[in-house]
Amino acid sequence: MKNIYFTCGPSQLYPTVKSHLKTALDNNLGSISHRGQQFQNIYKSAQTNLRKLLSIPLSHKIFFLSSSLESMERIIENCVEKQSFHFVNGAFSHKFYQFAKLLKKSPVKHEVDWGEGYLLNKIKIPKRTELICITQNETSTGASIPLQDINQIKQNHNVLVAVDIVSSAPYVKFDFSKIDLVFFSVQKGFGLPAGLSILIVSDRAIKKSNYLEKKGVNMGSYHSFSSLLEKGRIFQTPETPNVLSIYLLNQVCKDMLNKGITTIRKAIDENSKLVFDFFDQHPKYKPFVNNPVFRSRTTIEINVRGEANKILKKLKSSGIVVSSGYGKFKDNHIRIANFPAHSKDNFHKLINVIGYN
Amino acid sequence: MKNIYFTCGPSQLYPTVKSHLKTALDNNLGSISHRGQQFQNIYKSAQTNLRKLLSIPLSHKIFFLSSSLESMERIIENCVEKQSFHFVNGAFSHKFYQFAKLLKKSPVKHEVDWGEGYLLNKIKIPKRTELICITQNETSTGASIPLQDINQIKQNHNVLVAVDIVSSAPYVKFDFSKIDLVFFSVQKGFGLPAGLSILIVSDRAIKKSNYLEKKGVNMGSYHSFSSLLEKGRIFQTPETPNVLSIYLLNQVCKDMLNKGITTIRKAIDENSKLVFDFFDQHPKYKPFVNNPVFRSRTTIEINVRGEANKILKKLKSSGIVVSSGYGKFKDNHIRIANFPAHSKDNFHKLINVIGYN
Repeated sequence: MKNIYFTCGPSQLYPTVKSHLKTALDNNLGSISHRGQQFQNIYKSAQTNLRKLLSIPLSHKIFFLSSSLESMERIIENCVEKQSFHFVNGAFSHKFYQFAKLLKKSPVKHEVDWGEGYLLNKIKIPKRTELICITQNETSTGASIPLQDINQIKQNHNVLVAVDIVSSAPYVKFDFSKIDLVFFSVQKGFGLPAGLSILIVSDRAIKKSNYLEKKGVNMGSYHSFSSLLEKGRIFQTPETPNVLSIYLLNQVCKDMLNKGITTIRKAIDENSKLVFDFFDQHPKYKPFVNNPVFRSRTTIEINVRGEANKILKKLKSSGIVVSSGYGKFKDNHIRIANFPAHSKDNFHKLINVIGYN
Repeated sequence: MKNIYFTCGPSQLYPTVKSHLKTALDNNLGSISHRGQQFQNIYKSAQTNLRKLLSIPLSHKIFFLSSSLESMERIIENCVEKQSFHFVNGAFSHKFYQFAKLLKKSPVKHEVDWGEGYLLNKIKIPKRTELICITQNETSTGASIPLQDINQIKQNHNVLVAVDIVSSAPYVKFDFSKIDLVFFSVQKGFGLPAGLSILIVSDRAIKKSNYLEKKGVNMGSYHSFSSLLEKGRIFQTPETPNVLSIYLLNQVCKDMLNKGITTIRKAIDENSKLVFDFFDQHPKYKPFVNNPVFRSRTTIEINVRGEANKILKKLKSSGIVVSSGYGKFKDNHIRIANFPAHSKDNFHKLINVIGYN
């Protein structure tokens, strides 16, 4: 049976993925060399189209990694000698902080309750901070940080800024001049099978990594920024990469460019309004994040008061899959992804099945 | 056009891969959660079947990583406090050594010319060695180390032994009791698209990593052995993994088990004999590795005396793709993979096209 996946990632595949994958196999892309011209063309084209789609300036390089957890690790390794600062309000922002500790740095965190937002500029950031880490969209809680707040943080602090947009790309529209490191994975907003993460890195962050490298800091091996850059210059990766996934990313970027990113973002706005309106009026189930300013539009979290299992089953019998709450919220919450692959019709179906009773 | 890929990896896809991939997509495996039962079943089954195929004992854990370069990095991070020892005779064994340096260890190497083998037990290994790193099959030169030599090294040295079988699995038949860490990637002998590496780790290596972790050594973050183990116990990975690739690995392992690993290994022996006999008798082109004892059966390297480009073109026009020489051997050598996906008929075709003129 063909389900509709409103899960937070892996999620519903973008409608064109299956046919692109068939084309890829028909053209031997599962067999081509990752050191040959054919792959280099795919690499180059994927970078060009992603750059166009997200308006990434040339001051920022694009690296292909294997997962967003890897992106977190490489950011800490390459950009922090001693101290990073972390805004923590859920599982993934906490992981970022924890990774810095595991990598023997001395991170500092500002922590609020899961699901809460913060006014970034009201929080005092320690003087020795080298890197500020922000999880713009907390997949574990459905809380997101308004972009204007993120854009302002750079003006106030002469440090690097890293932003996790794992489950909000390509919806969020960044001013990259205000941000140094951005990462996401393809199995969420891009509607691809899992196994590829994108890390976008500013020249300033590269400069910092060069400085640390010269200083003798341990910054990993094959995925240090200098190693990624060296191969990137000839449109290759240090390792044998997930070639098919890079190809699919390129094709889906092209499809999204054809559709228009503004159209895609507008549809996500409209669909999120549909869902929030429904639950704001629901007699029992309510959006988990109270303050609409901090509500994620792409991973919507609903407090269903202990009925998560009941709803999951009910939806499943109609061929609809949503995510349960993350960790401690497993029984009480459901999470509904709102990605470019999800149509308004499907949201109507979802809402009808949940209903007001 | 459907080419035949005799490249050293990525290579010819195993004949069943396309149909397995179709089934996977039809069953929504590009969308399922990596934290749900359906994925856990795939994970478990892939481990069971790989264990059966390669006779991996229960004393050894199986981890899913993203590339063999990552496997090298994680091995050094998790098993070496200060000193590793490396047998170097080509690009990949040198990379392993270099990674240890980049990770701020103090590695020692025994280096011979590219393409040469060594009698492992004749070489003095320094007393402080914690880990011996051996590239059993050097993809860059076509030189391989006989298994009996690798099996003996453990008896002589009370240290961990890591073996790179990137381009010789599943052909090589190990005695795992003699080895602590083994790794390979799926885009070679398993005939899958790239984007997944397998790392096999003994209890002794796990114990060492626990010891180093307690001691406060930096062993990375999400892919430390303890993190991989913690998730592995519930048949998951720390990150969102390449789900489709793990599924495909499982299916191809099942296909290989049905065919019989002995049959598969025998075919590789026969096909390698075919190729070596042809080139041993060739008036101009000769196997690069002189001593048959050190000749790889799975990645066969031929010295074509400056005619690499000419041969590549000739083969290409018949729909056959082989690898050029690696690095400095680009113009002078060709490399021919001999994996389970390659049939005897295809080897006859290859040989006929190259011919004696």
